Amino acid sequence: MPSPEPHLAILGPGLLGGSLALAAKQRGAANRVSLWARRQPSIDHILQNHLADSASTDLAEATSGATLIVLATPVEIMPALAAQLASLPLSAGTLITDVGSVKGSVVRQLEPLFANSPATFLGSHPMAGSEKTGIDAARADLFHSQNAACILTPTDTTSPIDLDRLIAFWQTIGCRVLPPMSPERHDQEVARVSHLPQLMACVTTLAALQSDPSVLRCSGNGFRDTTRIASGDPALWTGIITQNHSAILPAVRDAHRHLGELLEILETLDEVKLQHFLTSAQTLRNLLPPKP
Amino acid sequence: MPSPEPHLAILGPGLLGGSLALAAKQRGAANRVSLWARRQPSIDHILQNHLADSASTDLAEATSGATLIVLATPVEIMPALAAQLASLPLSAGTLITDVGSVKGSVVRQLEPLFANSPATFLGSHPMAGSEKTGIDAARADLFHSQNAACILTPTDTTSPIDLDRLIAFWQTIGCRVLPPMSPERHDQEVARVSHLPQLMACVTTLAALQSDPSVLRCSGNGFRDTTRIASGDPALWTGIITQNHSAILPAVRDAHRHLGELLEILETLDEVKLQHFLTSAQTLRNLLPPKP
Repeated sequence: MPSPEPHLAILGPGLLGGSLALAAKQRGAANRVSLWARRQPSIDHILQNHLADSASTDLAEATSGATLIVLATPVEIMPALAAQLASLPLSAGTLITDVGSVKGSVVRQLEPLFANSPATFLGSHPMAGSEKTGIDAARADLFHSQNAACILTPTDTTSPIDLDRLIAFWQTIGCRVLPPMSPERHDQEVARVSHLPQLMACVTTLAALQSDPSVLRCSGNGFRDTTRIASGDPALWTGIITQNHSAILPAVRDAHRHLGELLEILETLDEVKLQHFLTSAQTLRNLLPPKP
Repeated sequence: MPSPEPHLAILGPGLLGGSLALAAKQRGAANRVSLWARRQPSIDHILQNHLADSASTDLAEATSGATLIVLATPVEIMPALAAQLASLPLSAGTLITDVGSVKGSVVRQLEPLFANSPATFLGSHPMAGSEKTGIDAARADLFHSQNAACILTPTDTTSPIDLDRLIAFWQTIGCRVLPPMSPERHDQEVARVSHLPQLMACVTTLAALQSDPSVLRCSGNGFRDTTRIASGDPALWTGIITQNHSAILPAVRDAHRHLGELLEILETLDEVKLQHFLTSAQTLRNLLPPKP
């Protein structure tokens, strides 16, 4: 068991930030947890519900003395927030990371901000979540119960010590830390298995319900599961998709091509090709190990 | 509590047939349950595991004295099996139904077979299932635990007594019986909320994994849920989709159109339109009540 971080500061009190605060204390990943939020009602809520040891709308106060700082805001807000952070008197050895679903644009913008600072930036992506958002949905076991993969995206300037320290932190939180990969590789992989399914769940929902929502009465578990994430926050996902646009586009083009092929098979009612199409998908889907 | 069927005969020992046999006994929907299977090893398995009171590969033997006969085979096999059944000396008042995911073609082919028989056909579709198939996956609570909708599809010739009797049977099994609808209406509705999601789960799987399956390592609950049903049996689904082809085609065309619109939004990176697209899907998806 690695030694806990003396002081973890989390910026952003959403589902991930709140769950991380709870997990860090409950699983011994940090001795002290402070939270920063933009609005005073969020701070009151955090303190009333004992979600962190301290909380403040003042960035300097919330991060003072922090050894590990985690940005847990929407990705499009991170650059401005990190620039503010870089202007503060950070201590040597302070490690800064984030929980963003996109890594290329985030790392490209955030890493240079700390080039002349005693602090260092190293990107993380703990792949836990829910179609629910906000701190009210926060749970200490969010990461552990989902056996969440966590991807760290070091660059040429990352020190092995920082990398090991951050790996140990996420493991203590309850994540399954994958081998590190480049920010670009990360973005290509999650475009396929996270961002594309998000968009496809929306397409399925629209095609199923838009002409007549009353068909919902006939729906079962198949519809429920294939479309669950379409309930996700549109603003949050607009940010993610915009930031990872270049990796998502080829994945959506592939989906459009496969759906076009399927449509052709159905137009001509070619049963042999249809069964082949379904079998190809089944074979690939069966590569995923059963839920642990 | 309605009186149980004196003798239920189930034709086809798959996931649904097996689960129905178990549920009928456990929930008091039938006093006696017999099963028909094509192959002797299935019969041996049924008897060894006490899944039914009796079992036979002989259709006459398996259905002799049955008051309710349920066809639980793939839909494309039902017409030939029903024709065989119609040639047997059935008693007056024998009710014959099925569990097929398609009703138009099934009802159109099966109902006339019993026009000059003392037995009557009335279509059912209990919407329970799993990506698993076969009697090994059978469970007495398959219907009840999923709060499964069950749709009955009476026609002009259906007697209200038969309809009430079959409604009571499926309710005792644990289904949520919906208001009856015509076979054609049924097929249109399930094309949207069951058959379309099945195909979309396959398209998502292919687009996500076909070029490089190793991206699976980055997948989380979103990918798992949106693609779960792509593991379904390709032969079974080829039958269903072929039979309900005319209702599925417009649904798949709609999906192709929505995906084309999304692709255009992404090509031009129109954030306002993207958020509007995601919000439309979210609003529709939120019409589905939370899992009970």
